[in-house]
Amino acid sequence: MAKILLKNAEVLGADGIIKSADIAVESTLIHQVGEISADWYADKVIDCTNKLAIPGFVNTHTHAAMTLFRSYADDMELMDWLQNKIWPAEGNLVADDVYWGTSLAIAEMIKSGTTTFSDMYFHMPQVAEAVAESGIRAVLARGMAGVAPNGEQALVESEDFFRQYHNAADGRITVMLGPHAPYTCPPEYLKRVANLAQRLGAEIHIHLSETIGEVNECKKNYGKSPIELMKDLGILECGVLAAHCVHVSEADILLMKEANVRVAHNPGSNMKLASGVAPVPAMLNAGLCVGLGTDGAASNNNLDMLEELRLAAMLHKVHALDPLLIPANTAVSMATANGAQALGLGNVVGRIAPGFKADITLFNMHAPHWYPRHDRVSLLAYSAGSGDVHTVMVDGKILLENKCLTTLDEERLMYEADRRGRRLVKP
Amino acid sequence: MAKILLKNAEVLGADGIIKSADIAVESTLIHQVGEISADWYADKVIDCTNKLAIPGFVNTHTHAAMTLFRSYADDMELMDWLQNKIWPAEGNLVADDVYWGTSLAIAEMIKSGTTTFSDMYFHMPQVAEAVAESGIRAVLARGMAGVAPNGEQALVESEDFFRQYHNAADGRITVMLGPHAPYTCPPEYLKRVANLAQRLGAEIHIHLSETIGEVNECKKNYGKSPIELMKDLGILECGVLAAHCVHVSEADILLMKEANVRVAHNPGSNMKLASGVAPVPAMLNAGLCVGLGTDGAASNNNLDMLEELRLAAMLHKVHALDPLLIPANTAVSMATANGAQALGLGNVVGRIAPGFKADITLFNMHAPHWYPRHDRVSLLAYSAGSGDVHTVMVDGKILLENKCLTTLDEERLMYEADRRGRRLVKP
Repeated sequence: MAKILLKNAEVLGADGIIKSADIAVESTLIHQVGEISADWYADKVIDCTNKLAIPGFVNTHTHAAMTLFRSYADDMELMDWLQNKIWPAEGNLVADDVYWGTSLAIAEMIKSGTTTFSDMYFHMPQVAEAVAESGIRAVLARGMAGVAPNGEQALVESEDFFRQYHNAADGRITVMLGPHAPYTCPPEYLKRVANLAQRLGAEIHIHLSETIGEVNECKKNYGKSPIELMKDLGILECGVLAAHCVHVSEADILLMKEANVRVAHNPGSNMKLASGVAPVPAMLNAGLCVGLGTDGAASNNNLDMLEELRLAAMLHKVHALDPLLIPANTAVSMATANGAQALGLGNVVGRIAPGFKADITLFNMHAPHWYPRHDRVSLLAYSAGSGDVHTVMVDGKILLENKCLTTLDEERLMYEADRRGRRLVKP
Repeated sequence: MAKILLKNAEVLGADGIIKSADIAVESTLIHQVGEISADWYADKVIDCTNKLAIPGFVNTHTHAAMTLFRSYADDMELMDWLQNKIWPAEGNLVADDVYWGTSLAIAEMIKSGTTTFSDMYFHMPQVAEAVAESGIRAVLARGMAGVAPNGEQALVESEDFFRQYHNAADGRITVMLGPHAPYTCPPEYLKRVANLAQRLGAEIHIHLSETIGEVNECKKNYGKSPIELMKDLGILECGVLAAHCVHVSEADILLMKEANVRVAHNPGSNMKLASGVAPVPAMLNAGLCVGLGTDGAASNNNLDMLEELRLAAMLHKVHALDPLLIPANTAVSMATANGAQALGLGNVVGRIAPGFKADITLFNMHAPHWYPRHDRVSLLAYSAGSGDVHTVMVDGKILLENKCLTTLDEERLMYEADRRGRRLVKP
């Protein structure tokens, strides 16, 4: 049972206050924080002088294997981009591509301080394999599109995937059901998803109200907003992680609060795709749990949670012309504790406290942009870069040590991703 | 005369196309790009395999020494922040503080790929000293506030500073006049600045139309917008670099175009301070030259031009709900060639081409977030981080080599900045 001591760190507490402390890690858990008992001995000691220890970032919404399409097509209208670029390229994906694309994404996420991600894609056993091998934590959902020819198959695969992988990899993998969106899943299909979810005790990860076009179409077809439709179909009762929620009304937010819908806010994707600005301050005021996500690297185009955190802190200020919105502490919580809660892992990760899983990211603060040190939370939120991530631990295991990956062969990943990415987009 | 060969680079051309090429640097200049003449020999060869060579970033608007107030006060109303935090702390600044704060800023800028910056502050001889020692290029302006007790002194100092430092440090330093803003410089004062500028042949760096409050106040007091007022006072005739221009009308933009006003767009500062969204697409459509700036690190809170470039590419898309606005190439040009033009250095820097000054930034592309390589300009604009900056050259001299500063004592800078920063904010 490995015992690791993080010595002389500056530790971000659940109260948003940073204090000098040691962290004792035993097996997969945080054993003690602060002054460590005199009779506790570590197998390994990491000197954390000038390091900021925070709970690892939780990326609540991505499509990891889409790294393979990173930089393939940008600055386009959404439907033009999807129909003429992304969907044809995705049509060429085989299971091995998803394995390698996901592994590349995991390498990028670990190197930028993310310890948990929530994925929705397909060929999910390959995604689970990449997660298991790498040591990262993940919440996985097989994306299901009811309108697609494989809509039936997706339901069967989702059930199989849940039964086989929920709580797999020593509990690092949990599974949700992933109906893609109201515009790709007709009501009857969504009812079947809700039934399956109830039967399995699974929660649901779904895209909701991402664009105004989607909301208008939903209202035209069903006379209600996507949120209202989800309520009527029984989806909200299952426990829902809703990605985007850009175009939700005050009435929608009330329904979401009643059903404890958790939101994955993706400011980078929403900005780049020009989807709009989600009413995050209103959602937070209503008491909703809002985490942050990068969305896939084809639309973002990276998996850098520090960038999302900063965008969340800055976008809503300028949008509402109110510099008090989403202060640094709130943005950091959204990227950590709130994200964990959004994924149903609120009692497992997202805090550096005894009993929580040892999912910890260390930032090296010894660089010009971290000085002077008037306020370390401000420095993290507004000044730091993901290049400052120094060491990352998940489940008590070190996955990044002094910027080097310990479980993944980075050279091989870059090679495979480049050659596969090129093949996928060949006309 | 040093001769340096950058071998096997991928080089961003003025046309926005990236090609494999070698770059021959002789003394301060780019001598050749592409295949190098067989009879040309280098004293030093830098292997640029997997490196992207771009013209160094041009930061068109900052207050470098304000790094000392980084993280001191955030998430506040503008006037509360200025009156109760920034101004009292600035009141404690002595000349040596400005030297050290500026030096810290220069270290941060070099490490994040910036080769030229445009500064407006005070104790400018100390700023010039820091610039001269570090090897960076800068356009410096002594900030002048006509309403301040030292308004007269500022005019005298500005003239002295121009005479002594314009084209100093082997031409790496040029000088502008820096009347702070219409709300701190009454019309009579601005007329005197315009006269001084004409007499010296100096251009003018000024904050214009940053907040809606400023514009409304100007209209109330003078019956015209800040841009109209500047035209009437003769300021625009001097050649103007205008910072912010958030709240400019279509009529303002026409006046700006007539007078060839160049704009320093600061998306990060405008977002964090909730100033608003500048009509950059309209300004670009009108043919204005728009560069990018970080503003001071107290309001941003870093000096990372890659972050500004990305914000410029993303903010305008979501603001206008148009994903085609400010594509990657445009954003990169704004951060390089347009920025150079905005500072009056368009024929000197901002391009990797023979005859231009050798101001070059190399990005290390060998990292997960740079794969696959479908489009390197997209990767730079949407995926890269300033942590990827590997080597930086200014005026043919290497200032950053494999991420290490060659001209600055980074440890000393961090030490001085931290201790001075703490002293300045003591109640």
